[in-house]
Amino acid sequence: MALIVQKYGGTSVGTVDKIQGVADKIIATKNAGNDVVVVVSAMSGETNRLIDLTKKIDPNPDPREYDVVIATGEQVTIGLLCIALIKRGCPARSYTGSQVHILTDSAHTKARILDIDEARVRQDLKEGRIVVVAGFQGVDQLGSITTLGRGGSDTTGVALAAALKADECQIYTDVDGVYTTDPRIVPQARRLDRITFEEMLELASLGSKVLQIRSVEFAGKYGVKLRVLHSFQDGPGTLITYDDEEHKMEDPIISGIAFNRDEAKLTVAGVPDKPGIASQILGPIGKANIEVDMIIQNVGVDGLTDFTFTVHRNDYDKALKVLQDTAKKLGAREVSGDNTIVKVSVVGVGMRSHAGIASTMFEALAKEAINIRMISTSEIKISVVVDEKYMELAVRALHDAFHLEKMPTV
Amino acid sequence: MALIVQKYGGTSVGTVDKIQGVADKIIATKNAGNDVVVVVSAMSGETNRLIDLTKKIDPNPDPREYDVVIATGEQVTIGLLCIALIKRGCPARSYTGSQVHILTDSAHTKARILDIDEARVRQDLKEGRIVVVAGFQGVDQLGSITTLGRGGSDTTGVALAAALKADECQIYTDVDGVYTTDPRIVPQARRLDRITFEEMLELASLGSKVLQIRSVEFAGKYGVKLRVLHSFQDGPGTLITYDDEEHKMEDPIISGIAFNRDEAKLTVAGVPDKPGIASQILGPIGKANIEVDMIIQNVGVDGLTDFTFTVHRNDYDKALKVLQDTAKKLGAREVSGDNTIVKVSVVGVGMRSHAGIASTMFEALAKEAINIRMISTSEIKISVVVDEKYMELAVRALHDAFHLEKMPTV
Repeated sequence: MALIVQKYGGTSVGTVDKIQGVADKIIATKNAGNDVVVVVSAMSGETNRLIDLTKKIDPNPDPREYDVVIATGEQVTIGLLCIALIKRGCPARSYTGSQVHILTDSAHTKARILDIDEARVRQDLKEGRIVVVAGFQGVDQLGSITTLGRGGSDTTGVALAAALKADECQIYTDVDGVYTTDPRIVPQARRLDRITFEEMLELASLGSKVLQIRSVEFAGKYGVKLRVLHSFQDGPGTLITYDDEEHKMEDPIISGIAFNRDEAKLTVAGVPDKPGIASQILGPIGKANIEVDMIIQNVGVDGLTDFTFTVHRNDYDKALKVLQDTAKKLGAREVSGDNTIVKVSVVGVGMRSHAGIASTMFEALAKEAINIRMISTSEIKISVVVDEKYMELAVRALHDAFHLEKMPTV
Repeated sequence: MALIVQKYGGTSVGTVDKIQGVADKIIATKNAGNDVVVVVSAMSGETNRLIDLTKKIDPNPDPREYDVVIATGEQVTIGLLCIALIKRGCPARSYTGSQVHILTDSAHTKARILDIDEARVRQDLKEGRIVVVAGFQGVDQLGSITTLGRGGSDTTGVALAAALKADECQIYTDVDGVYTTDPRIVPQARRLDRITFEEMLELASLGSKVLQIRSVEFAGKYGVKLRVLHSFQDGPGTLITYDDEEHKMEDPIISGIAFNRDEAKLTVAGVPDKPGIASQILGPIGKANIEVDMIIQNVGVDGLTDFTFTVHRNDYDKALKVLQDTAKKLGAREVSGDNTIVKVSVVGVGMRSHAGIASTMFEALAKEAINIRMISTSEIKISVVVDEKYMELAVRALHDAFHLEKMPTV
């Protein structure tokens, strides 16, 4: 008998009818011989409705009381889902984050889980019940209700799976798995059967918004097997797991092509090439609460160097202004920038042990006459910055070049 | 410094604007030098919306899970009210029934309060906070969320006032107090400054739906002074308190005229006048889950007697059928009934020590040629059943006869 944690998001439980469909799915999992713990989000639209109520009273509502209001969204869903399960003759019991002791810190609206007391859940499972837990919420040391911030229901699912040492944590969503790239751009994009946590992190942070990054990190840290599945279609989904030796030989070299349209790049040219220059340039950017993604500094020539970095496109104007001030102080030659760029990345744990990935990538782009503006690499990823207008072309060319439409062969 | 418990019902907190109005009112009470504990209901319409969701899934939803869903209504209000108070610079903290340990039995959907741990509330008051508690809900020994049933927020207010030994429990509602009768029927009806618990119980159960009966019983039992006030109009309201000696002399003989249109009467005539007959007639009625209000049995003649009782009008057809079966078994002469009757009552603790109330009442009705069909009396009440068409006339005649439009004089 396996222990499965299933998480259903807001669109999966968006109506009373959908909740009943989810109940049927849960019962099927139980009838297949599994113990089942379920984590649910608020019905879609409900969290926004509650937020609006608070904002009408105060645009910056007290965080403790904000959490009291927002946490009701998931509480409604757990009760409704248990009513549906019990009506179908299946014993079930619901718990709020507080009732099942999902202990968090006191950082209201963005709390972090510290501990889960799983004894109560185990007892219910032993007595043959399905346990339904409110996602996205917990309780702090003072007994106050906390919320984990947007998307936190995934984290609740993973944390429960870790505490219970569940065999699998299934995340039900509105896609049937993780794809080699966005099928809207490359129709031949293929669902991946398996992907590693590290690859998933790179794909998620680069724009494949299937799973909350935090929950993937959490799953990796605690060794929880994650599976992404479609709420209303049958299928095996995508398993997110460790890059263990057993599977290594079968692993594809490249898992997917990610892209990000939300970037802008800034360059300060002709700055003195001396120690501490990077922090002198990025310090004021950080102080202005601007997050930096890629950072590139090339080898200096004649004691001068060029320094380039990317920021979120929304921060472009602000960053440009900060950088111009810094450049003046440093006596730099000039500041330039471009907010019509995109980042395209090939991601795969396989590239660690395979040479030639970079050249395949650059050749493919060159063949389409796409000029590469920046390059950045990590252990399992190569990212390039290209002009925005080439984005789709670049993604398709790379998907082709690495034959991602085909199942990988050993 | 006095300690005041204020309870605001669903219409008083029905919109975000009204919640902000209530916040102003609470702050005014605090600024007048009082400690304030507030109990709130769900925003009007919200409880019905939640009930509808559960009923769409199961017309008879699991009671534990039903309570999980329904209890969110008040939780939203406590958070929103605290956000409004804190925005106004007033320290405040909200608690669900579970957080403030309103311990109840496990009778989900109609739980009874067993105990309140008031230590936490006292600590907050000591630290200068306004405490806002969710009405209508509690937690059982197992840690499950319970609800007290409809109108239970009044009971929460009274229970908190009792536990905290509050100086007064103020129930804010959409009327400015308790009246001598319904002003829609008698325009001269007068707001009462004071009324006793016992009178209030009779008035409430007879149709003046200002306060939940259970909360009045509770207040009487624990000696909590209750005051009924209008949420959005200033005024002294009506104080509901003990019939202590100090005030006895000033008490009016009659406090008010109550009426109830929801009754129907049934008579079984010519039954053997022997011990046990009442239970033989009413036993089957009780078994059919029909509640009985008035019961009248007259002195028997020739070993036979007539037996009459009233039930809720909705139960009339069912009760008639049950009674016909019983009559057959008992060999009774006939069964008759009437569902076009009303009960009109004069209520007042003063009548204990004053003779002549009954005759004044009957004379007033006779003068209007209103035929009395049944009479029933208690220590502080005389009720008559008359034809429905005479109801308004009877109420006006009695209001006049006892001069209720005038302030009572000693």
